[in-house]
Amino acid sequence: MKKSLGPGTWLYPTPVFVVGTYDAAGKPNVMTVAWGGICCSKPPCVAISVRKATYTYASLMEKKEFTISIPTEKQVVPADFFGTASGRDTDKFAAAGLTPVRSELVHAPYVGEFPFVLECRIVHVAELGLHTLFAAEILDVKVDESCLDERGRPTAALMRPIWWGPSENRYYGTGEDLGKGFAVGRVLQPGGD
Amino acid sequence: MKKSLGPGTWLYPTPVFVVGTYDAAGKPNVMTVAWGGICCSKPPCVAISVRKATYTYASLMEKKEFTISIPTEKQVVPADFFGTASGRDTDKFAAAGLTPVRSELVHAPYVGEFPFVLECRIVHVAELGLHTLFAAEILDVKVDESCLDERGRPTAALMRPIWWGPSENRYYGTGEDLGKGFAVGRVLQPGGD
Repeated sequence: MKKSLGPGTWLYPTPVFVVGTYDAAGKPNVMTVAWGGICCSKPPCVAISVRKATYTYASLMEKKEFTISIPTEKQVVPADFFGTASGRDTDKFAAAGLTPVRSELVHAPYVGEFPFVLECRIVHVAELGLHTLFAAEILDVKVDESCLDERGRPTAALMRPIWWGPSENRYYGTGEDLGKGFAVGRVLQPGGD
Repeated sequence: MKKSLGPGTWLYPTPVFVVGTYDAAGKPNVMTVAWGGICCSKPPCVAISVRKATYTYASLMEKKEFTISIPTEKQVVPADFFGTASGRDTDKFAAAGLTPVRSELVHAPYVGEFPFVLECRIVHVAELGLHTLFAAEILDVKVDESCLDERGRPTAALMRPIWWGPSENRYYGTGEDLGKGFAVGRVLQPGGD
């Protein structure tokens, strides 16, 4: 039996994107964002949504570029911290003891210790209400070699990314491998085995 | 050491959204979408991205409304199937033995057996390239009572949602509970304990 809960931003899973920008003075900053996801395959694009009131918003509007660093199960503490402090009055990298690395392709820093990084350039901005959506082209993906499988592909089983449950407000790790995409459902095709 | 992999739609996690629409003849259809996420808190909005070539695209443009049904670890087979067959020539609900349920608030069907449903009305459309982004207001969230915790909140630990790793093309289940949001990171605040 389904229960109606009314309107709300409850959806599973939501990602834990650590968005990196330089502020007007050139100071590296990061902010954790759960509102976002891939939004186009060609060109490859990702969307993030940010409130106007955040320190990151001004940097995004000014620089039009950012990074996304993805934390692992062992990095949930800094990932959560980056979503609670403000870059206005805190050097979040220093407080977390993590390293801001200057990107090669965009004017934005990423978290050196996080294993998976996207370098992004904004291509579309939409004002939706409390949040502004920034769709951005992914110019490069950089991944720790320890997260690549024998074919050189990133794999969650090695990377152990985290996600967030927005209703209960809890983080979760990488669960069981449930099988291959465009494959496990074939049993339901006519003539599928 | 980080390795540059070039541009790509590799990001973790990506969701498994089963998007429900009625076609022009009123036939219920579903399509699995991994490109999307929450995009605004007030009004609550979600974004999905769909290729123009899909059967769902025309229904979205015509009806301006859709649902998102979220599958569990035990429903990975129909969720994957919904992403491989086309509604043009397949009654996907019938093939999967699942029930199309007419939504209360929007003109779109959802998957009765899936535990978590959003009813959505499109508010913004952006052509980004191969994919079109649809941002939609969430008018209601409907959840199986079996997925609600003692405080009546949806919780992933009971719901067991799945997600997809886009590079290795594999599904994963709900992992370990890693702690509370806006809480586990407090140890890094000045004076944090």
